[in-house]
Amino acid sequence: MEFELKKAIEILENTPLVLESLLNGLSKEWIRNNEGENTWSPYDVVGHLVFGEKTDWMVRIRIILSDSENRSFTPFDRFAQMDADQNIPVKSLLDEFRLLRMNNLEELASLNIQREDLDRVGVHPEFGEVTLKQLISAWAVHDLGHIAQISRVMAKQYTQEVGPWTRYMGILKK
Amino acid sequence: MEFELKKAIEILENTPLVLESLLNGLSKEWIRNNEGENTWSPYDVVGHLVFGEKTDWMVRIRIILSDSENRSFTPFDRFAQMDADQNIPVKSLLDEFRLLRMNNLEELASLNIQREDLDRVGVHPEFGEVTLKQLISAWAVHDLGHIAQISRVMAKQYTQEVGPWTRYMGILKK
Repeated sequence: MEFELKKAIEILENTPLVLESLLNGLSKEWIRNNEGENTWSPYDVVGHLVFGEKTDWMVRIRIILSDSENRSFTPFDRFAQMDADQNIPVKSLLDEFRLLRMNNLEELASLNIQREDLDRVGVHPEFGEVTLKQLISAWAVHDLGHIAQISRVMAKQYTQEVGPWTRYMGILKK
Repeated sequence: MEFELKKAIEILENTPLVLESLLNGLSKEWIRNNEGENTWSPYDVVGHLVFGEKTDWMVRIRIILSDSENRSFTPFDRFAQMDADQNIPVKSLLDEFRLLRMNNLEELASLNIQREDLDRVGVHPEFGEVTLKQLISAWAVHDLGHIAQISRVMAKQYTQEVGPWTRYMGILKK
């Protein structure tokens, strides 16, 4: 499937409600349990997505489209959410994420990106030159990856409880 | 995490809206593309979930709770959706799934399942004896597995498009 801005935005627009419906009304264990030491709970993942909206994706898009000589991205702190106040209810994180995403997509639309802009580049701290197209694709895939992760972390809480069904449940093996 | 009927139902209740928000407003390619030969598209997965509501989970719960001597489950056709009319819009499948799930959860509530019922057994065509607790756990995990699958299938459509980000995107490697 070839990149089209419109189709990438379809994914990005859906994510806030996907997360809200996935975590709506769940008991604390579903939200706060993880997959073991040094792994993330659904709560941690939502916190990570909030930081991504604040400091990563849109910031990098602005850098790529700027006229500045220096198009280097600041490294993204993928663990910033771990230093945030852990008592913030998940509902508040989800609300924050939805607002940030909505504002970011409004800004993205206002940039009026043309086909030829998609090949403009910024400098990733590890990868070197990356294009705007790759960055926006990665933003959408990053959403989907974390939705899958949240589903997997929750599924794993019942690894023992499903008994012999583990055999059919590929998600429990990842 | 130990099984509690109430907490399993939290997951089962959320799934219809999760699927709707995940697939809402998407272009056909997101819905109909798969991961390659003999793999499922998001459309196929939703069709599979519809058949599960009709012929699998609740039917087996009824068998376990029946007073019948014979508590054998009929094998579940995991590919039934492939023989269904492929022109039915995904929106219709999602509506059907939501209604079926709602009815199934109403019936589940009406059964007034007690803690001691959770150890009652049925006979799975492959596994042999399985308990009601295992069956209901598997129902919830099955939902989460397919939500993760849909996210993965969609993510993979952009495997090429993310460029060097594939390195960080575990979802593209599964």
